[in-house]
Amino acid sequence: MAAVEIERLARLLQRLPGLGPRSARRAVLALLEKREVLLEPLLEALAACAREVRRCGLCRNLDVRDPCSVCADPGRDAGLLCVVETVEDLWALERAGIWKGRYFVLGGTLSALDAVGPEDLGIDLLMRRVAEEGVREVVLALGATVEGQTTAHYLAERLRDRGVTVTRLAHGVPVGGELHYLDEGTLEAALRARQPL
Amino acid sequence: MAAVEIERLARLLQRLPGLGPRSARRAVLALLEKREVLLEPLLEALAACAREVRRCGLCRNLDVRDPCSVCADPGRDAGLLCVVETVEDLWALERAGIWKGRYFVLGGTLSALDAVGPEDLGIDLLMRRVAEEGVREVVLALGATVEGQTTAHYLAERLRDRGVTVTRLAHGVPVGGELHYLDEGTLEAALRARQPL
Repeated sequence: MAAVEIERLARLLQRLPGLGPRSARRAVLALLEKREVLLEPLLEALAACAREVRRCGLCRNLDVRDPCSVCADPGRDAGLLCVVETVEDLWALERAGIWKGRYFVLGGTLSALDAVGPEDLGIDLLMRRVAEEGVREVVLALGATVEGQTTAHYLAERLRDRGVTVTRLAHGVPVGGELHYLDEGTLEAALRARQPL
Repeated sequence: MAAVEIERLARLLQRLPGLGPRSARRAVLALLEKREVLLEPLLEALAACAREVRRCGLCRNLDVRDPCSVCADPGRDAGLLCVVETVEDLWALERAGIWKGRYFVLGGTLSALDAVGPEDLGIDLLMRRVAEEGVREVVLALGATVEGQTTAHYLAERLRDRGVTVTRLAHGVPVGGELHYLDEGTLEAALRARQPL
């Protein structure tokens, strides 16, 4: 239909999460209609990210520097290490502004089906950090999914006898959540972990 | 939270139609995780579009050449001109492969509220094409919205006494559509325009 160049851009945008064929076409048009305010700045921002963003050699976060700004921050408690599945999870915790320790990003979960083993998740690097940086507590902030919990159990096993406390996030009712929308597993976990008022 | 460069890319992606803050962040991560297969090709495709795509001087379509491939196609009937609101509408008709004439893209609809007048929609250019290219029929393929129909009436008025037939798309039941999902206006139009079997 349209020029090859336009088709190619639409096909690539369609590979971004959240964009289907129709919204990719609309995005292409928005870009072409708003060159100065959208296409050109996006081109620059993409080029800057391609040039400058790298993976942190300590925690596998994405940043323009290595070690990343979290690992390099002297105000962070090096004794506390929070293990997350993805950089997105790290960002979510940082937005909440409640974690004063450091992170380790697995980049996924163990999966026999997808052939993801401990080496793909950088678990040796994680073990080295725990051993060398005087980590006191490792929080396994993994998803409450089968894959997340399998990975958490594997990590807990590997971290046993290393002299560190291993914890996981609490399960319960999401703040602002209504009970009748919750599944039975969450309700059971919330009831079992009930707190005195 | 993340590096300024990453934040900037997420903010720009968020301005594309169909991407909210959350999906823009996920898109940034997908780009950064898949550099060779996604980020680099997208960068090239965007640069190619920025460099090469222009607006057709005849019909206001977007293409890498001017006149665009539709206007330049000698196999198209120059006597048939289809007026559409957007390039997206033109693409939709081209995908259907049912129009053998040429197009004219208004780029919007008349709107007193948004201060969009005839000059913004290139209506003088349209009139010139109709006068100079021996156009026999102008199909007003505008949206069946208040704005689309207002614009269609304005154009029909301007095209009167120019010796061209002015038509509009039929209203009716969309193919594959179920009656009970349709609004009353559509049902009424479909009933009034009923066809013998």
